[in-house]
Parts: sequence; C-alpha cells; structure tokens
Amino acid sequence: MSDSEKNLPEAVQKNVNKAVGKKADRKNGKNFQEKKIAVVDTMFARGDMFRVAKETIESASAENNWKVKILRRTVPGVKDIPVAILNLLEQGCDAGIVFGMPGSQPVDKTCSHEASLGIQQVQLMTRKTVLEVFVHEDEGADAQELAEIMRNRASKHSLNLLWLLFSPEELEKRAGSGERQGRGNASSFEL
Amino acid sequence: MSDSEKNLPEAVQKNVNKAVGKKADRKNGKNFQEKKIAVVDTMFARGDMFRVAKETIESASAENNWKVKILRRTVPGVKDIPVAILNLLEQGCDAGIVFGMPGSQPVDKTCSHEASLGIQQVQLMTRKTVLEVFVHEDEGADAQELAEIMRNRASKHSLNLLWLLFSPEELEKRAGSGERQGRGNASSFEL
Amino acid sequence: MSDSEKNLPEAVQKNVNKAVGKKADRKNGKNFQEKKIAVVDTMFARGDMFRVAKETIESASAENNWKVKILRRTVPGVKDIPVAILNLLEQGCDAGIVFGMPGSQPVDKTCSHEASLGIQQVQLMTRKTVLEVFVHEDEGADAQELAEIMRNRASKHSLNLLWLLFSPEELEKRAGSGERQGRGNASSFEL
Amino acid sequence: MSDSEKNLPEAVQKNVNKAVGKKADRKNGKNFQEKKIAVVDTMFARGDMFRVAKETIESASAENNWKVKILRRTVPGVKDIPVAILNLLEQGCDAGIVFGMPGSQPVDKTCSHEASLGIQQVQLMTRKTVLEVFVHEDEGADAQELAEIMRNRASKHSLNLLWLLFSPEELEKRAGSGERQGRGNASSFEL
Amino acid sequence: MSDSEKNLPEAVQKNVNKAVGKKADRKNGKNFQEKKIAVVDTMFARGDMFRVAKETIESASAENNWKVKILRRTVPGVKDIPVAILNLLEQGCDAGIVFGMPGSQPVDKTCSHEASLGIQQVQLMTRKTVLEVFVHEDEGADAQELAEIMRNRASKHSLNLLWLLFSPEELEKRAGSGERQGRGNASSFEL
Repeated sequence: MSDSEKNLPEAVQKNVNKAVGKKADRKNGKNFQEKKIAVVDTMFARGDMFRVAKETIESASAENNWKVKILRRTVPGVKDIPVAILNLLEQGCDAGIVFGMPGSQPVDKTCSHEASLGIQQVQLMTRKTVLEVFVHEDEGADAQELAEIMRNRASKHSLNLLWLLFSPEELEKRAGSGERQGRGNASSFEL
Repeated sequence: MSDSEKNLPEAVQKNVNKAVGKKADRKNGKNFQEKKIAVVDTMFARGDMFRVAKETIESASAENNWKVKILRRTVPGVKDIPVAILNLLEQGCDAGIVFGMPGSQPVDKTCSHEASLGIQQVQLMTRKTVLEVFVHEDEGADAQELAEIMRNRASKHSLNLLWLLFSPEELEKRAGSGERQGRGNASSFEL
Repeated sequence: MSDSEKNLPEAVQKNVNKAVGKKADRKNGKNFQEKKIAVVDTMFARGDMFRVAKETIESASAENNWKVKILRRTVPGVKDIPVAILNLLEQGCDAGIVFGMPGSQPVDKTCSHEASLGIQQVQLMTRKTVLEVFVHEDEGADAQELAEIMRNRASKHSLNLLWLLFSPEELEKRAGSGERQGRGNASSFEL
Repeated sequence: MSDSEKNLPEAVQKNVNKAVGKKADRKNGKNFQEKKIAVVDTMFARGDMFRVAKETIESASAENNWKVKILRRTVPGVKDIPVAILNLLEQGCDAGIVFGMPGSQPVDKTCSHEASLGIQQVQLMTRKTVLEVFVHEDEGADAQELAEIMRNRASKHSLNLLWLLFSPEELEKRAGSGERQGRGNASSFEL
Repeated sequence: MSDSEKNLPEAVQKNVNKAVGKKADRKNGKNFQEKKIAVVDTMFARGDMFRVAKETIESASAENNWKVKILRRTVPGVKDIPVAILNLLEQGCDAGIVFGMPGSQPVDKTCSHEASLGIQQVQLMTRKTVLEVFVHEDEGADAQELAEIMRNRASKHSLNLLWLLFSPEELEKRAGSGERQGRGNASSFEL
C-alpha cells in the first residue's frame, strides 16, 4: 500500500481502487506525459468538492504513474465558471473539471442551464473536455445525503477525467453499462 | 448470402436488407471512396448501441461495396459527446453518429438539450453531419421495450448515415413519408 | 394563361396569382438575375411539402420572369436540417427554405427548438435568409387539416422567399398587416 | 412649434416632448454626425409599428438637430428578423430597431425566443445595439389595448435608440428609475 | 478610519470591512496596477444599484490600495446589456459587472434568460469576467425587501469582482462555503 492510499475517505478510496487495474503498465514502467488539469469551483456550493477531487486525482495518479498538475480558480457561482475555465484551458491545461451546486429555485435551474451552455461552448472553442460536476441542491433530502452525492460524484468524475487523459480504454470497456456518478450505477441490458 | 448477413439480430438484418437495393451499382462494380465515420457513445447508457451500429454499418457496407472506417470514443455521459465528436471530425472523419440515453428526470432533459445544442454547433463548425441517436430512458415502459427502441433506432440511423454518405437519393425517395427511427413509421398523406 | 398555371392545386394557384401583380415589370421585360434556392426537407414529415414548394416556385417564377434554380437535399429529421442547408448555401445558393414536421411529444418540441436555433445560426453565418416551414404534428386535428396547413404554409412561404429575392417591396406593402402562413390571415388595426 | 410637431399622435408627441430637453445644445448649434438606423419589421404583426417609429424618429430628430437616415426591410415573421437586421448593420447602419408581434401559442413563444437569441447574437457580431420591440399578442385584452401598447412601446424605444446614439446621458439620468415601454412606468425606490 | 468609510450604508460598510483583511499588503505598500471596471445598468430597474456598487468599489479600493477606474453605460433593459458591456470590455476594461431587474412575468423570465446567455457569450468572446447582478422583481415581497436584496447583492458582488481582480485567494478561502449574494449565506458541511 502506497502512502497515497492511506487515510482516504471511502468514496475516494473505492475510485482509486477502480483505477488501479493496469498493473502491467505500472510494472512495465510505462511513462505518461504530464497533463495539466484545470479546476474551477464556487463559493456558492455548500461543500468543498475540490478537496475530494484533489485527493482522488493525486491518489489515483500516484498509483498509476500518471503525472498530473492541477491549476485551480474559485469563482462566486456557476455562471462564473465558463470564462474561468476557458482562461485556464487557454493557459495550457489539457482538460478541465468544474464543480458547482445550483440552488433549488426555478431561477437557479435557469442559471445552471446557462452555465452548462457556456461550458459546452468553452469545450468547442478549445477542443478540450470539461467534465461538469454539478450537484443540484434538491438532489438530496438533507445535508448528509447531499454530501454523499457530492463526494461520490466529485470522486468518480475525477477518475473519469484521468481515464480520458491517460486510459480511454477504461471508458470504452464500460460503454452502455449504466455507469452513474453521484449514486449507484443503473442496471444495463443486452441489445 | 454473404458472410456479413449471417447471424445478425432481426432489427439489424431488416435495415441491411433495406440498404441492399442498388444491385445495379454493385453489379457494375461502382467504386466508392472510403469514408471515415466518427462514433461517440457513453458509459451512462444502459445498453451497447455502438455494437448494433457497428453490425449494421459493417453488414450494409459489405453488401453495397461501400468502404467505411469507424473511429470511436466513449465518454461518461451525453454532455461529453460534443467535444469528443468534434475532435474525431477534425481528425478527418466525414460524418458522425452519436449514441446516448438521457435519464428521465427534468435535470436529465436539460442535460440532453445542452448536449443536443452542442452537437448542432459541432455540425455547423465542421460542416459535417452528426446523427444524434438518443433514446430517452422514459421512452420505454421497461428494459425490454427500451432495448427494442435502442436496437431499432441505432440500426436505422446507422443506415441513414450510410445513405447520406454513399446514396443520398435513398433519402430523397422517402421524403415526407413519415419515416421513424425507434418505432414503426408514421402514416403519410398526399398534399 | 401560361402552361405553368395549368392544373395547379388551389392553394398553390392562389399564391401564384398573388405574385402576378407586377405586369409592368413583365411587360417592360425587366431582367432578373438567376437566383439559386436551397431546399432541405425530411423523411420524418408525413407529407411532401417540397413538391408543393417546387410547384409554387416554378409557376410564380414563370409568371414573373424570375429565374430560379433549386438545389435540394433530404435528411432524416429536423435536427439534420441546419448543417444540410449550410452546405447548400455555402455551395452558392442565395437563400434557403426548409420543410419539417416536428412531432407532438415534449421531446419533439425540444428537437424542433434545437433545429430552429441551428437554422438561426446558419443564417447569421452565411448572411442569407432561410425560411423555416415547420408544421407541428399537433397543429391539425387530423390528416386532412394537417395537409391543408402544410400546403398553405409551404406554398405561401415559397412565395415569400421569391419576394425576398426578387421583389422585397411586396413584403413592405404588407408590413403589420397580420399575414399568416398555414391558416387565414389575422385581422390588423390602425396604430 | 416646428412642422414636425404638428398632427402627431399623442403617444409619439409625448416622447418627442421628452426628447426636447436639450435646448442649450440646439441653441449652441451643436452639430451631430448623421447616424444610420436599421429597421426591420414583419408582415405577421397586426399593426404598423414602423410608421410610429418613423414619426417619432423624424420628429425628435428635427427638434434636436439630430441627423438620421433610416434603412428598412420587411420580413415575414420574427424569426426572419435576425439575418435581415444583420445585413442592414453590415451595410453601415450604426444601430438597429426591430418590430415584431409574437403570437399567443406556446409555439409562438418558442419562435419569439429563437428570434431574440438571434438578435442577441447579431449585436455581439456587429458590436451594435439592436432594440427589440416585440409586443406579444396576449399582452393586450383586445385590439384597442394592443394598439395602445404597440404605439407606446414603438415610440418610446425609438426615442431610446436616439438617446443611445446622440444623447446617452439621458439614459443615465433615468438609471434604476423603473422606466417601462408599452405601459406606464413602475415605481422606484431608494437603495 | 479613512474618509471613504464614513457615512456608508450598512450593507456596503459590512462588505468593505470584509475586504479589509489584507493589512500586511497595505502596510508593505503592495502596489496594484490600475484595473478598469465596466459597468452597465438599466433604466428598467426600480432602484439604483450602480450607486451601491460605486460606493462599495470606491471604499474597498481606498482601504486596500487597489486602483480602480469605472466606465459606465446605462441601457433601457437587460436585453440591451450584452452588447453594451462588450463594447466597454473591448475598449480596455479588465472585467465587468452588470445590474438588472427582470420583471415577474413569464416573458420577463425569458428576456432575462436571453440576456444571461448574451452575457455568457460576451465573457467567452473577451476572456473577461462579467458578474451578473440581477434581482428578479418577484424575489422580494415588497419594495423594502427588494431594496434590501438589491443593496446586499450589488455590494457583495462588487466586492467579489474586486477580489477576482486583486485578491483571488479571498475567493479560494471561501470555496464550497455556501456564500450567497442578496441574502444571508447558506450552511455548509464537511465532505
């Protein structure tokens, strides 16, 4: 067990474990080029998803010999995310991940939609992936449930981003399998 | 019967049969230039529509002497599709087809709408067609019905894409005829 | 009566008659430059609006000495229209007209909205007008009513397009007059 | 009383009077550069808002020594406005104003939204202001009320446009004051 | 106590106090480069949020040795904001803040959404942040409550903008902490 695996929250540890499938690569000492990851989060959110993401990224990277550098900005709310992540991506980041927590009122839903459209636009401008990790305030019944969703979604999408950058075949293996972030996976069926 | 026709699921076989109308071309040995098709699918979907598409494309292409190469990426969910298909199209693909399965909650409908707007944008940026094959989780009453819709829609749209690339007159012949993907066709009427 | 006026459906004939107001121009042998019109329609629609448009365009052009060339593509559904009409416009067409028939489900309304936004975008990219002739499946109570709306709207908008290209003063004359396509005109009032 | 003030409808006259505050400028013979104003209106609207706008613009300009030239296009409906106003702005107009009357059905609301998004886009492409004067068919209970809203909104926004072009301090003076177009102003309060 | 702190409304003073945490920087005489802030507000709003913002910006800047220049435009309503703020940003402003008050009718919500999408677009075009300070007319039960929200939101977002320009670590410190503008902060929880 490496240092990076110690004392991780369960939600993070499970994702790190999932990432550690490529023993052969590690044994063969496969060399990955360093990737820069842009992260934007908000003051508005009611929990620190960035910390969860950072732990997942650092642990999984250490396990897999992936080299990662994180650049981060914090903005007031979700509508301030698009231009912030654009700036980071244009400063040389390879991909991005953003964390937000839209409120539960109709006006919040509209704001969230506007932010998401901006994030789409940024990806098409830069040709780089930005994973959007939004947890809506009404997704959970109370703080405890919300916290669980936030941990799970932040950690799993952090791993998804690493896979997109270093190991896209991991995504392909799970195509059409009902993978979910935030809650347990859905059932899948044969076509 | 060619090898490629053997053991195909019924939904695929019916579409391959539809495609095999141009005997003259095949007999005359008409030579088609190879086309590269970009495909993006998701881990989120609950069934492997890519496999259905691949079978349809390969069988119909073999029957019609169409030369096709498939490039594929798998992403977490529908909102990650636009930038992924943009990347493939800009790497030289001639057209694209994307598979997704938006959930049934209002937030999923919004995500699906955002993804679709991104896919529209990608087409206008690249001047290339991307067929969007989305099956909404609430389109079917149960897994069996969903699977049927997914097979049917994935297969029929795969054939549509081939027609757009190799035989646009097949689309023109069916203009205003109530063609549907996912279910049976609608009735049409004289104007 | 010219050949082109013979045996036209009533809906088309009425529009052709409306177009034939500029006898002076015709007598004076005014020479119009040929305009290329891009047309995109769908397999999804339940009636052939292109045929109605073609008849209107050809008859009205013959009457008015307008020179028109039609380029046409057929695509699966309305969301495939924007990139198709963009391609035609960039191949040298002067303006476009597109025909679609969005279904009656909420998801169809969303698709229609996405298509319309794409069509807006195409016009701003090319600086060329594209008239959008969409008949929603729930606009009519039955096939007969739908067919009537489709004929009327397709024919009237075809004439509108010709006016935009050859005779913009016809539009100006009717400014603020409650002109409708698909049904009878609305009443207008003095300001 | 100048010629231009004679026989104007009350709604227009009131706005012209509002504009005539800058006696000093006129006395000092301040010279304004000619500005070209792009106007697009529709056949669909049920009243001629362009005429109201023209009267307001001409009267207020005459009073204030503002030099204005109007370029105008009429299009079928609101969705045809964006590309038309773009064309006029790119032909050298300094700003634009557009008049439309969206219907009362849900599909009309969607069309209006699409038109508005296009008009936003045009402004960002050209860096020029386009005031959108839309009167929704369901804003008034009957033709008389609608006509009143249309006159009021068309006239007041025409004056707003002149202020933006020739006298931006007039807008600044009224910042946060509850100014409305179409109806009476709202109350304002101290912050 | 500096001059700039005297006689400020409570809402502004509280934010100025929050900003005054960096005594060390001030003592060390840290030199900040002058930043130009673009501000756009509307006649439509029922209170003068610009004044609140100006007071906050000037007081907090004086306290912190931040050098700020404000450029301002007033427009009729929220839909006129995007092009106005774009113009100011392209004239050399470093960031922007905009104030608006969408009405309570459905059509107002749509207008607000269109304005917000335009503001998103402007940020992506210029790569510069624009904080959107919209207070919806139905957020408060009466004028008094509305005024309180407007003061609070205008002042807090003005401080946010200063932090983004001069002291981004202040935002980072509050990441995921439930910061709100307009009302009291939300509770936050451990992840």
